Amino acid sequence: MNSSVLFENIIKKKSFLCVGLDTEMEKIPSFLLKGKDPVFEFNRRIIDATCSYAVAYKPNIAFYECYGSKGWASLEATVRYIKDNHPEIFVIADAKRGDIGNTSKMYAKAFLENMPFDAITVAPYMGEDSVTPFLSYDDKWVVILALTSNKGADDFQYHNEDGIKLFERVLTVSRKWGTVNNIMYVVGATRAEMLKEIRQLVPDHFLLVPGVGAQGGSLEDVARYGMNSKCGLLVNSSRGIIFADNSKDFDKVAGQKAKEIQQEMECYLTQNKLI
Amino acid sequence: MNSSVLFENIIKKKSFLCVGLDTEMEKIPSFLLKGKDPVFEFNRRIIDATCSYAVAYKPNIAFYECYGSKGWASLEATVRYIKDNHPEIFVIADAKRGDIGNTSKMYAKAFLENMPFDAITVAPYMGEDSVTPFLSYDDKWVVILALTSNKGADDFQYHNEDGIKLFERVLTVSRKWGTVNNIMYVVGATRAEMLKEIRQLVPDHFLLVPGVGAQGGSLEDVARYGMNSKCGLLVNSSRGIIFADNSKDFDKVAGQKAKEIQQEMECYLTQNKLI
Repeated sequence: MNSSVLFENIIKKKSFLCVGLDTEMEKIPSFLLKGKDPVFEFNRRIIDATCSYAVAYKPNIAFYECYGSKGWASLEATVRYIKDNHPEIFVIADAKRGDIGNTSKMYAKAFLENMPFDAITVAPYMGEDSVTPFLSYDDKWVVILALTSNKGADDFQYHNEDGIKLFERVLTVSRKWGTVNNIMYVVGATRAEMLKEIRQLVPDHFLLVPGVGAQGGSLEDVARYGMNSKCGLLVNSSRGIIFADNSKDFDKVAGQKAKEIQQEMECYLTQNKLI
Repeated sequence: MNSSVLFENIIKKKSFLCVGLDTEMEKIPSFLLKGKDPVFEFNRRIIDATCSYAVAYKPNIAFYECYGSKGWASLEATVRYIKDNHPEIFVIADAKRGDIGNTSKMYAKAFLENMPFDAITVAPYMGEDSVTPFLSYDDKWVVILALTSNKGADDFQYHNEDGIKLFERVLTVSRKWGTVNNIMYVVGATRAEMLKEIRQLVPDHFLLVPGVGAQGGSLEDVARYGMNSKCGLLVNSSRGIIFADNSKDFDKVAGQKAKEIQQEMECYLTQNKLI
Protein backbone atom coordinates (compact mmCIF):
# COMPACT_ATOMS: atom_id res chain seq x y z
CA MET A 1 0.00 0.00 0.00
CA ASN A 2 1.47 3.39 -0.97
CA SER A 3 0.71 6.74 0.67
CA SER A 4 -1.91 7.72 -1.95
CA VAL A 5 -3.97 4.59 -1.27
CA LEU A 6 -3.63 5.19 2.46
CA PHE A 7 -4.85 8.77 2.01
CA GLU A 8 -7.79 7.53 -0.13
CA ASN A 9 -8.80 5.19 2.68
CA ILE A 10 -8.61 8.05 5.17
CA ILE A 11 -10.91 10.16 2.99
CA LYS A 12 -13.30 7.25 2.45
CA LYS A 13 -13.63 6.48 6.16
CA LYS A 14 -13.22 10.10 7.33
CA SER A 15 -10.84 8.74 9.88
CA PHE A 16 -7.11 8.45 10.57
CA LEU A 17 -7.63 6.13 13.52
CA CYS A 18 -5.27 3.25 14.23
CA VAL A 19 -6.63 0.79 16.80
CA GLY A 20 -3.88 -0.63 19.01
CA LEU A 21 -4.35 -4.35 19.68
CA ASP A 22 -2.47 -4.44 23.01
CA THR A 23 -4.46 -7.47 24.05
CA GLU A 24 -3.87 -8.50 27.68
CA MET A 25 -5.32 -11.82 28.77
CA GLU A 26 -6.09 -10.34 32.23
CA LYS A 27 -8.34 -7.69 30.68
CA ILE A 28 -10.26 -9.91 28.27
CA PRO A 29 -13.93 -10.42 29.30
CA SER A 30 -14.05 -13.65 31.28
CA PHE A 31 -16.66 -15.33 29.09
CA LEU A 32 -14.09 -15.49 26.27
CA LEU A 33 -11.46 -17.29 28.34
CA LYS A 34 -13.04 -20.73 27.90
CA GLY A 35 -12.39 -20.72 24.15
CA LYS A 36 -9.41 -22.22 22.33
CA ASP A 37 -7.70 -18.91 21.53
CA PRO A 38 -9.20 -16.11 23.67
CA VAL A 39 -6.71 -13.49 22.42
CA PHE A 40 -7.62 -14.07 18.79
CA GLU A 41 -11.35 -14.30 19.57
CA PHE A 42 -11.17 -10.99 21.46
CA ASN A 43 -9.27 -9.37 18.58
CA ARG A 44 -11.66 -10.75 15.98
CA ARG A 45 -14.67 -9.20 17.73
CA ILE A 46 -12.86 -5.90 18.28
CA ILE A 47 -11.91 -5.80 14.60
CA ASP A 48 -15.46 -6.57 13.42
CA ALA A 49 -16.84 -3.86 15.70
CA THR A 50 -14.32 -1.12 14.87
CA CYS A 51 -13.35 -1.73 11.23
CA SER A 52 -15.79 0.89 9.89
CA TYR A 53 -14.02 3.59 11.90
CA ALA A 54 -10.35 2.55 11.64
CA VAL A 55 -7.88 2.77 8.76
CA ALA A 56 -5.19 0.84 10.61
CA TYR A 57 -4.59 -1.76 13.31
CA LYS A 58 -1.45 -2.05 15.36
CA PRO A 59 -0.85 -5.25 17.33
CA ASN A 60 1.74 -4.60 20.03
CA ILE A 61 4.01 -7.60 19.68
CA ALA A 62 5.07 -7.75 23.36
CA PHE A 63 1.51 -8.65 24.35
CA TYR A 64 1.69 -11.76 22.13
CA GLU A 65 5.30 -12.74 22.86
CA CYS A 66 4.53 -12.90 26.56
CA TYR A 67 2.44 -16.00 25.78
CA GLY A 68 5.30 -17.62 23.88
CA SER A 69 4.61 -19.79 20.83
CA LYS A 70 0.85 -19.75 21.61
CA GLY A 71 0.90 -15.96 21.62
CA TRP A 72 2.58 -15.98 18.24
CA ALA A 73 -0.14 -18.23 16.90
CA SER A 74 -2.74 -15.69 18.14
CA LEU A 75 -0.79 -12.90 16.43
CA GLU A 76 -0.55 -14.82 13.15
CA ALA A 77 -4.30 -15.54 13.25
CA THR A 78 -5.09 -11.89 14.00
CA VAL A 79 -3.11 -10.32 11.18
CA ARG A 80 -4.39 -12.94 8.70
CA TYR A 81 -7.96 -12.29 9.82
CA ILE A 82 -7.57 -8.57 9.17
CA LYS A 83 -5.97 -9.01 5.76
CA ASP A 84 -8.43 -11.75 4.65
CA ASN A 85 -11.49 -9.70 5.61
CA HIS A 86 -10.33 -6.10 5.26
CA PRO A 87 -7.43 -6.04 2.80
CA GLU A 88 -7.65 -2.23 2.57
CA ILE A 89 -6.76 -1.78 6.25
CA PHE A 90 -3.13 -0.95 7.06
CA VAL A 91 -1.62 -3.30 9.65
CA ILE A 92 1.42 -2.29 11.68
CA ALA A 93 3.57 -4.67 13.74
CA ASP A 94 4.53 -2.57 16.75
CA ALA A 95 7.73 -4.49 17.33
CA LYS A 96 10.46 -1.84 17.70
CA ARG A 97 13.05 -4.17 16.20
CA GLY A 98 16.49 -3.27 14.83
CA ASP A 99 19.78 -5.18 14.67
CA ILE A 100 22.78 -5.68 12.38
CA GLY A 101 21.88 -6.24 8.72
CA ASN A 102 21.63 -10.02 8.50
CA THR A 103 19.54 -10.10 11.69
CA SER A 104 17.20 -7.27 10.67
CA LYS A 105 16.68 -9.22 7.44
CA MET A 106 15.31 -12.09 9.54
CA TYR A 107 13.00 -9.76 11.48
CA ALA A 108 11.78 -8.31 8.18
CA LYS A 109 11.10 -11.82 6.92
CA ALA A 110 9.15 -12.64 10.09
CA PHE A 111 6.81 -9.66 9.90
CA LEU A 112 6.68 -8.49 6.27
CA GLU A 113 7.01 -11.81 4.44
CA ASN A 114 5.79 -14.66 6.64
CA MET A 115 3.02 -12.54 8.14
CA PRO A 116 1.09 -10.06 5.96
CA PHE A 117 1.91 -6.91 7.96
CA ASP A 118 2.12 -3.68 5.93
CA ALA A 119 4.58 -2.05 8.31
CA ILE A 120 6.84 -2.56 11.31
CA THR A 121 8.08 -0.11 13.93
CA VAL A 122 11.89 0.04 14.12
CA ALA A 123 14.35 1.55 16.64
CA PRO A 124 17.00 3.75 14.98
CA TYR A 125 19.91 3.41 17.46
CA MET A 126 21.94 1.02 15.27
CA GLY A 127 21.67 3.19 12.13
CA GLU A 128 21.13 2.66 8.43
CA ASP A 129 22.05 -1.00 7.94
CA SER A 130 19.76 -1.96 10.82
CA VAL A 131 16.78 -0.37 9.03
CA THR A 132 17.31 -0.86 5.28
CA PRO A 133 16.55 -4.63 5.26
CA PHE A 134 12.97 -3.70 6.20
CA LEU A 135 12.82 -1.36 3.17
CA SER A 136 13.45 -4.04 0.57
CA TYR A 137 9.79 -5.08 0.26
CA ASP A 138 7.49 -3.41 -2.31
CA ASP A 139 4.54 -1.59 -0.73
CA LYS A 140 5.75 -2.29 2.82
CA TRP A 141 6.79 0.33 5.34
CA VAL A 142 9.07 0.96 8.28
CA VAL A 143 7.94 3.24 11.06
CA ILE A 144 11.06 4.68 12.68
CA LEU A 145 11.03 5.87 16.29
CA ALA A 146 11.72 9.61 16.31
CA LEU A 147 10.25 11.24 19.41
CA THR A 148 8.43 8.84 21.68
CA SER A 149 5.57 9.52 24.11
CA ASN A 150 7.17 8.18 27.30
CA LYS A 151 9.07 10.02 30.04
CA GLY A 152 12.34 8.30 29.12
CA ALA A 153 12.27 10.06 25.74
CA ASP A 154 14.05 12.91 27.56
CA ASP A 155 17.07 10.74 28.40
CA PHE A 156 18.61 10.56 24.94
CA GLN A 157 16.28 11.83 22.21
CA TYR A 158 17.09 15.49 23.00
CA HIS A 159 20.91 14.94 23.04
CA ASN A 160 21.98 18.06 21.17
CA GLU A 161 24.89 18.42 18.72
CA ASP A 162 25.35 21.97 17.39
CA GLY A 163 21.66 22.74 17.90
CA ILE A 164 20.47 19.47 16.34
CA LYS A 165 18.70 17.15 18.74
CA LEU A 166 19.09 13.40 18.32
CA PHE A 167 15.47 12.87 17.21
CA GLU A 168 15.95 15.62 14.59
CA ARG A 169 19.10 13.92 13.36
CA VAL A 170 17.18 10.63 13.18
CA LEU A 171 14.60 12.37 10.97
CA THR A 172 17.02 14.15 8.64
CA VAL A 173 19.42 11.22 8.25
CA SER A 174 16.87 8.41 7.95
CA ARG A 175 14.51 10.16 5.52
CA LYS A 176 17.24 9.62 2.89
CA TRP A 177 17.08 5.84 3.35
CA GLY A 178 13.67 5.58 1.70
CA THR A 179 10.73 7.63 0.47
CA VAL A 180 7.40 9.02 1.70
CA ASN A 181 5.95 5.76 0.40
CA ASN A 182 7.92 3.45 2.67
CA ILE A 183 9.02 5.42 5.75
CA MET A 184 6.84 6.81 8.54
CA TYR A 185 7.88 8.15 11.94
CA VAL A 186 6.65 7.61 15.48
CA VAL A 187 5.97 10.92 17.22
CA GLY A 188 4.26 10.69 20.60
CA ALA A 189 1.04 12.67 21.12
CA THR A 190 2.34 13.78 24.52
CA ARG A 191 4.87 15.85 22.52
CA ALA A 192 2.25 17.37 20.20
CA GLU A 193 3.79 20.86 20.47
CA MET A 194 6.92 19.41 18.81
CA LEU A 195 4.95 18.37 15.73
CA LYS A 196 5.25 21.87 14.25
CA GLU A 197 9.03 21.65 14.26
CA ILE A 198 8.98 18.03 13.09
CA ARG A 199 6.76 18.97 10.13
CA GLN A 200 9.50 21.34 8.94
CA LEU A 201 11.89 18.38 8.70
CA VAL A 202 9.47 15.80 7.30
CA PRO A 203 6.57 17.78 5.77
CA ASP A 204 5.27 14.95 3.61
CA HIS A 205 5.85 11.80 5.66
CA PHE A 206 3.11 9.97 7.50
CA LEU A 207 3.47 10.12 11.28
CA LEU A 208 2.24 7.37 13.58
CA VAL A 209 1.12 9.06 16.76
CA PRO A 210 0.59 7.00 19.92
CA GLY A 211 -0.19 8.41 23.34
CA VAL A 212 -3.67 9.86 22.76
CA GLY A 213 -6.09 8.84 25.53
CA ALA A 214 -4.61 6.72 28.34
CA GLN A 215 -1.19 8.39 27.98
CA GLY A 216 -2.71 11.90 28.02
CA GLY A 217 -2.04 13.27 24.52
CA SER A 218 -4.60 15.57 22.85
CA LEU A 219 -6.05 14.61 19.46
CA GLU A 220 -6.91 18.25 18.78
CA ASP A 221 -3.28 19.34 19.24
CA VAL A 222 -2.00 16.47 17.13
CA ALA A 223 -4.34 17.45 14.28
CA ARG A 224 -3.51 21.15 14.64
CA TYR A 225 0.28 20.76 14.53
CA GLY A 226 0.71 17.49 12.60
CA MET A 227 -1.82 17.35 9.76
CA ASN A 228 -0.56 17.99 6.22
CA SER A 229 -2.31 18.20 2.85
CA LYS A 230 -2.63 14.41 2.65
CA CYS A 231 -3.56 14.10 6.32
CA GLY A 232 -0.15 12.53 7.06
CA LEU A 233 -1.32 11.17 10.40
CA LEU A 234 -2.24 7.81 11.85
CA VAL A 235 -3.31 8.35 15.46
CA ASN A 236 -3.31 5.28 17.67
CA SER A 237 -5.72 4.56 20.49
CA SER A 238 -5.66 1.26 22.30
CA ARG A 239 -6.84 0.82 25.90
CA GLY A 240 -9.48 3.58 25.57
CA ILE A 241 -11.17 1.54 22.85
CA ILE A 242 -10.44 -2.15 23.32
CA PHE A 243 -10.80 -2.22 27.12
CA ALA A 244 -13.57 0.38 27.46
CA ASP A 245 -15.91 -2.36 28.71
CA ASN A 246 -15.55 -6.00 29.74
CA SER A 247 -19.12 -7.23 29.62
CA LYS A 248 -20.62 -9.45 26.91
CA ASP A 249 -21.09 -6.24 24.92
CA PHE A 250 -17.42 -5.19 25.09
CA ASP A 251 -17.19 -5.15 21.30
CA LYS A 252 -20.20 -2.88 20.87
CA VAL A 253 -18.77 -0.44 23.40
CA ALA A 254 -15.37 -0.59 21.62
CA GLY A 255 -17.15 0.19 18.35
CA GLN A 256 -18.90 3.14 19.97
CA LYS A 257 -15.61 4.49 21.36
CA ALA A 258 -13.93 4.12 17.96
CA LYS A 259 -16.88 5.91 16.34
CA GLU A 260 -16.55 8.84 18.78
CA ILE A 261 -12.88 9.24 17.87
CA GLN A 262 -13.68 8.90 14.16
CA GLN A 263 -16.27 11.68 14.47
CA GLU A 264 -13.75 13.97 16.15
CA MET A 265 -11.25 13.13 13.40
CA GLU A 266 -13.89 13.92 10.76
CA CYS A 267 -14.14 17.44 12.22
CA TYR A 268 -10.42 18.01 11.92
CA LEU A 269 -10.35 16.64 8.35
CA THR A 270 -13.21 19.00 7.50
CA GLN A 271 -11.53 21.98 9.19
CA ASN A 272 -8.42 21.26 7.11
CA LYS A 273 -10.56 21.03 3.94
CA LEU A 274 -9.46 17.46 3.23
CA ILE A 275 -13.04 16.21 3.01
CA MET B 1 23.28 -15.31 38.60
CA ASN B 2 25.36 -12.37 39.92
CA SER B 3 28.68 -11.13 38.56
CA SER B 4 30.76 -13.09 41.11
CA VAL B 5 29.22 -16.40 40.06
CA LEU B 6 29.73 -15.47 36.43
CA PHE B 7 33.39 -14.70 37.14
CA GLU B 8 33.78 -18.02 39.01
CA ASN B 9 32.45 -19.85 35.95
CA ILE B 10 34.91 -17.98 33.75
CA ILE B 11 37.80 -19.03 35.99
CA LYS B 12 36.57 -22.62 36.16
CA LYS B 13 36.25 -22.98 32.38
CA LYS B 14 39.18 -20.65 31.57
CA SER B 15 36.89 -19.11 29.02
CA PHE B 16 34.73 -16.03 28.48
CA LEU B 17 33.18 -17.42 25.32
CA CYS B 18 29.54 -16.84 24.48
CA VAL B 19 28.30 -19.03 21.63
CA GLY B 20 25.76 -17.26 19.45
CA LEU B 21 22.89 -19.52 18.41
CA ASP B 22 21.99 -17.67 15.18
CA THR B 23 20.51 -20.85 13.78
CA GLU B 24 19.50 -20.56 10.12
CA MET B 25 17.50 -23.42 8.64
CA GLU B 26 19.35 -22.97 5.31
CA LYS B 27 22.70 -23.65 6.96
CA ILE B 28 21.70 -26.65 9.09
CA PRO B 29 23.23 -29.94 7.83
CA SER B 30 20.65 -31.54 5.56
CA PHE B 31 20.48 -34.84 7.46
CA LEU B 32 18.83 -32.98 10.38
CA LEU B 33 16.05 -31.50 8.27
CA LYS B 34 13.93 -34.66 8.33
CA GLY B 35 13.40 -34.45 12.09
CA LYS B 36 10.47 -32.86 13.92
CA ASP B 37 12.34 -29.75 15.11
CA PRO B 38 15.62 -29.38 13.16
CA VAL B 39 16.48 -26.02 14.75
CA PHE B 40 16.29 -27.41 18.28
CA GLU B 41 18.08 -30.62 17.31
CA PHE B 42 20.90 -28.60 15.72
CA ASN B 43 21.14 -26.39 18.82
CA ARG B 44 21.09 -29.38 21.17
CA ARG B 45 24.05 -30.96 19.42
CA ILE B 46 25.94 -27.67 19.24
CA ILE B 47 25.35 -27.14 22.97
CA ASP B 48 26.49 -30.66 23.89
CA ALA B 49 29.64 -30.23 21.81
CA THR B 50 30.60 -26.74 23.00
CA CYS B 51 29.39 -26.55 26.62
CA SER B 52 32.82 -27.38 28.07
CA TYR B 53 34.29 -24.28 26.40
CA ALA B 54 31.48 -21.75 26.75
CA VAL B 55 30.22 -19.79 29.76
CA ALA B 56 27.26 -18.34 27.87
CA TYR B 57 24.88 -18.94 24.97
CA LYS B 58 23.09 -16.24 23.06
CA PRO B 59 20.15 -17.21 20.85
CA ASN B 60 19.49 -14.44 18.34
CA ILE B 61 15.72 -14.10 18.54
CA ALA B 62 15.23 -12.94 14.92
CA PHE B 63 16.39 -16.34 13.69
CA TYR B 64 13.53 -18.00 15.62
CA GLU B 65 10.83 -15.38 14.97
CA CYS B 66 11.29 -15.77 11.24
CA TYR B 67 9.73 -19.24 11.64
CA GLY B 68 6.75 -17.82 13.54
CA SER B 69 5.12 -19.81 16.34
CA LYS B 70 7.15 -22.91 15.36
CA GLY B 71 10.35 -20.90 15.70
CA TRP B 72 9.28 -19.76 19.16
CA ALA B 73 8.73 -23.39 20.15
CA SER B 74 12.32 -24.16 19.02
CA LEU B 75 13.57 -21.21 21.06
CA GLU B 76 11.65 -22.29 24.17
CA ALA B 77 13.00 -25.84 23.82
CA THR B 78 16.56 -24.55 23.37
CA VAL B 79 16.72 -22.31 26.41
CA ARG B 80 15.03 -24.97 28.58
CA TYR B 81 17.52 -27.57 27.35
CA ILE B 82 20.45 -25.37 28.33
CA LYS B 83 19.05 -24.55 31.78
CA ASP B 84 17.96 -28.15 32.51
CA ASN B 85 21.34 -29.60 31.60
CA HIS B 86 23.79 -26.78 32.31
CA PRO B 87 22.19 -24.48 34.91
CA GLU B 88 25.53 -22.73 35.46
CA ILE B 89 25.63 -21.42 31.89
CA PHE B 90 24.47 -17.83 31.34
CA VAL B 91 21.82 -17.54 28.63
CA ILE B 92 21.19 -14.25 26.85
CA ALA B 93 18.15 -13.48 24.69
CA ASP B 94 19.58 -11.30 21.92
CA ALA B 95 16.29 -9.52 21.33
CA LYS B 96 17.16 -5.79 21.34
CA ARG B 97 13.73 -4.94 22.75
CA GLY B 98 12.63 -1.66 24.37
CA ASP B 99 9.28 0.13 24.53
CA ILE B 100 7.16 2.22 26.91
CA GLY B 101 6.97 0.84 30.46
CA ASN B 102 3.88 -1.37 30.31
CA THR B 103 5.07 -2.89 27.03
CA SER B 104 8.66 -3.49 28.19
CA LYS B 105 7.10 -5.26 31.20
CA MET B 106 5.48 -7.73 28.79
CA TYR B 107 8.77 -8.30 26.95
CA ALA B 108 10.47 -8.87 30.30
CA LYS B 109 7.78 -11.40 31.21
CA ALA B 110 8.27 -13.18 27.88
CA PHE B 111 12.01 -13.64 28.24
CA LEU B 112 12.89 -13.48 31.94
CA GLU B 113 9.81 -15.09 33.48
CA ASN B 114 8.13 -17.40 30.97
CA MET B 115 11.47 -18.52 29.54
CA PRO B 116 14.47 -19.06 31.82
CA PHE B 117 16.82 -16.56 30.16
CA ASP B 118 19.36 -14.89 32.46
CA ALA B 119 19.57 -11.73 30.37
CA ILE B 120 18.11 -9.83 27.45
CA THR B 121 19.67 -7.25 25.12
CA VAL B 122 17.82 -3.92 25.14
CA ALA B 123 17.94 -0.82 22.88
CA PRO B 124 18.33 2.43 24.86
CA TYR B 125 16.64 4.95 22.52
CA MET B 126 13.45 5.24 24.59
CA GLY B 127 15.28 5.84 27.88
CA GLU B 128 14.90 4.79 31.51
CA ASP B 129 11.28 3.62 31.72
CA SER B 130 11.83 1.44 28.64
CA VAL B 131 14.65 -0.41 30.41
CA THR B 132 13.76 -0.56 34.13
CA PRO B 133 10.96 -3.18 33.77
CA PHE B 134 13.68 -5.65 32.75
CA LEU B 135 15.59 -4.83 35.96
CA SER B 136 12.84 -5.92 38.33
CA TYR B 137 13.88 -9.59 38.38
CA ASP B 138 16.38 -10.91 40.95
CA ASP B 139 19.53 -12.32 39.40
CA LYS B 140 18.49 -11.35 35.87
CA TRP B 141 20.29 -8.87 33.63
CA VAL B 142 19.77 -6.36 30.90
CA VAL B 143 22.44 -5.89 28.28
CA ILE B 144 22.11 -2.35 26.94
CA LEU B 145 23.33 -1.44 23.45
CA ALA B 146 26.15 1.09 23.80
CA LEU B 147 28.47 0.97 20.79
CA THR B 148 27.49 -1.63 18.22
CA SER B 149 29.68 -3.48 15.73
CA ASN B 150 27.87 -2.53 12.52
CA LYS B 151 28.57 0.27 10.04
CA GLY B 152 25.34 2.09 10.97
CA ALA B 153 26.72 2.64 14.49
CA ASP B 154 28.29 5.78 13.01
CA ASP B 155 24.91 7.30 12.14
CA PHE B 156 23.76 8.22 15.65
CA GLN B 157 25.94 6.66 18.36
CA TYR B 158 28.66 9.30 17.93
CA HIS B 159 26.21 12.27 18.02
CA ASN B 160 28.18 14.64 20.23
CA GLU B 161 26.86 17.09 22.84
CA ASP B 162 29.58 19.20 24.47
CA GLY B 163 32.19 16.51 23.86
CA ILE B 164 29.95 13.66 25.07
CA LYS B 165 29.02 11.16 22.39
CA LEU B 166 25.60 9.53 22.51
CA PHE B 167 27.00 6.08 23.38
CA GLU B 168 28.96 7.66 26.25
CA ARG B 169 25.80 9.36 27.49
CA VAL B 170 23.99 6.00 27.28
CA LEU B 171 26.72 4.51 29.50
CA THR B 172 26.84 7.29 32.10
CA VAL B 173 23.07 7.77 32.35
CA SER B 174 22.00 4.12 32.28
CA ARG B 175 24.61 2.80 34.73
CA LYS B 176 22.59 4.59 37.43
CA TRP B 177 19.47 2.55 36.62
CA GLY B 178 20.95 -0.63 38.08
CA THR B 179 24.17 -2.19 39.32
CA VAL B 180 27.16 -4.16 38.07
CA ASN B 181 25.08 -7.21 39.00
CA ASN B 182 22.21 -6.53 36.63
CA ILE B 183 23.46 -4.31 33.80
CA MET B 184 25.93 -5.20 31.04
CA TYR B 185 26.71 -3.31 27.84
CA VAL B 186 27.06 -4.32 24.20
CA VAL B 187 30.33 -3.03 22.73
CA GLY B 188 31.20 -4.29 19.26
CA ALA B 189 34.58 -5.96 18.76
CA THR B 190 35.01 -3.98 15.55
CA ARG B 191 35.36 -0.91 17.82
CA ALA B 192 37.90 -2.57 20.15
CA GLU B 193 40.06 0.57 20.27
CA MET B 194 37.13 2.33 21.94
CA LEU B 195 37.12 -0.15 24.82
CA LYS B 196 39.87 1.78 26.61
CA GLU B 197 37.69 4.88 26.78
CA ILE B 198 34.58 2.86 27.62
CA ARG B 199 36.40 1.19 30.52
CA GLN B 200 36.92 4.65 32.06
CA LEU B 201 33.12 5.12 32.16
CA VAL B 202 32.13 1.59 33.20
CA PRO B 203 35.24 0.03 34.75
CA ASP B 204 33.41 -2.74 36.60
CA HIS B 205 30.54 -3.70 34.31
CA PHE B 206 30.52 -6.81 32.18
CA LEU B 207 30.64 -6.10 28.44
CA LEU B 208 29.07 -8.36 25.86
CA VAL B 209 31.26 -8.16 22.78
CA PRO B 210 29.95 -9.38 19.43
CA GLY B 211 31.72 -9.02 16.13
CA VAL B 212 34.75 -11.26 16.65
CA GLY B 213 35.29 -13.61 13.70
CA ALA B 214 32.88 -13.20 10.77
CA GLN B 215 32.49 -9.45 11.43
CA GLY B 216 36.27 -8.93 11.64
CA GLY B 217 36.91 -7.96 15.27
CA SER B 218 40.11 -9.09 17.03
CA LEU B 219 39.88 -11.12 20.24
CA GLU B 220 43.38 -10.05 21.20
CA ASP B 221 42.44 -6.34 21.03
CA VAL B 222 39.21 -6.91 22.93
CA ALA B 223 41.11 -8.66 25.74
CA ARG B 224 43.85 -6.00 25.74
CA TYR B 225 41.53 -3.00 26.02
CA GLY B 226 38.45 -4.48 27.67
CA MET B 227 39.48 -6.97 30.35
CA ASN B 228 39.18 -5.90 33.98
CA SER B 229 40.12 -7.56 37.28
CA LYS B 230 37.05 -9.82 37.12
CA CYS B 231 37.45 -10.45 33.39
CA GLY B 232 34.36 -8.30 32.68
CA LEU B 233 34.00 -9.70 29.18
CA LEU B 234 31.72 -12.11 27.39
CA VAL B 235 32.90 -12.42 23.81
CA ASN B 236 30.42 -13.81 21.34
CA SER B 237 31.20 -15.98 18.36
CA SER B 238 28.46 -17.49 16.25
CA ARG B 239 28.89 -18.36 12.58
CA GLY B 240 32.59 -19.21 13.02
CA ILE B 241 31.61 -21.96 15.46
CA ILE B 242 28.12 -23.22 14.69
CA PHE B 243 28.43 -23.22 10.89
CA ALA B 244 32.11 -24.19 10.65
CA ASP B 245 31.07 -27.49 9.06
CA ASN B 246 27.87 -28.97 7.70
CA SER B 247 28.69 -32.64 7.53
CA LYS B 248 27.46 -35.33 9.95
CA ASP B 249 30.31 -34.23 12.21
CA PHE B 250 29.29 -30.57 12.32
CA ASP B 251 29.00 -30.68 16.11
CA LYS B 252 32.50 -32.10 16.59
CA VAL B 253 33.93 -29.39 14.35
CA ALA B 254 31.95 -26.75 16.27
CA GLY B 255 33.37 -28.15 19.53
CA GLN B 256 36.89 -27.97 18.08
CA LYS B 257 36.37 -24.34 16.98
CA ALA B 258 35.00 -23.40 20.42
CA LYS B 259 37.99 -25.12 22.04
CA GLU B 260 40.43 -23.10 19.91
CA ILE B 261 38.81 -19.85 21.01
CA GLN B 262 38.75 -21.04 24.65
CA GLN B 263 42.48 -21.77 24.44
CA GLU B 264 43.19 -18.30 23.11
CA MET B 265 41.03 -16.85 25.90
CA GLU B 266 42.96 -18.92 28.45
CA CYS B 267 46.15 -17.20 27.30
CA TYR B 268 44.65 -13.74 27.85
CA LEU B 269 43.27 -14.71 31.28
CA THR B 270 46.76 -16.00 32.19
CA GLN B 271 48.48 -12.87 30.86
CA ASN B 272 46.15 -10.77 33.01
CA LYS B 273 46.91 -13.01 36.04
CA LEU B 274 43.26 -13.98 36.49
CA ILE B 275 44.06 -17.71 36.40
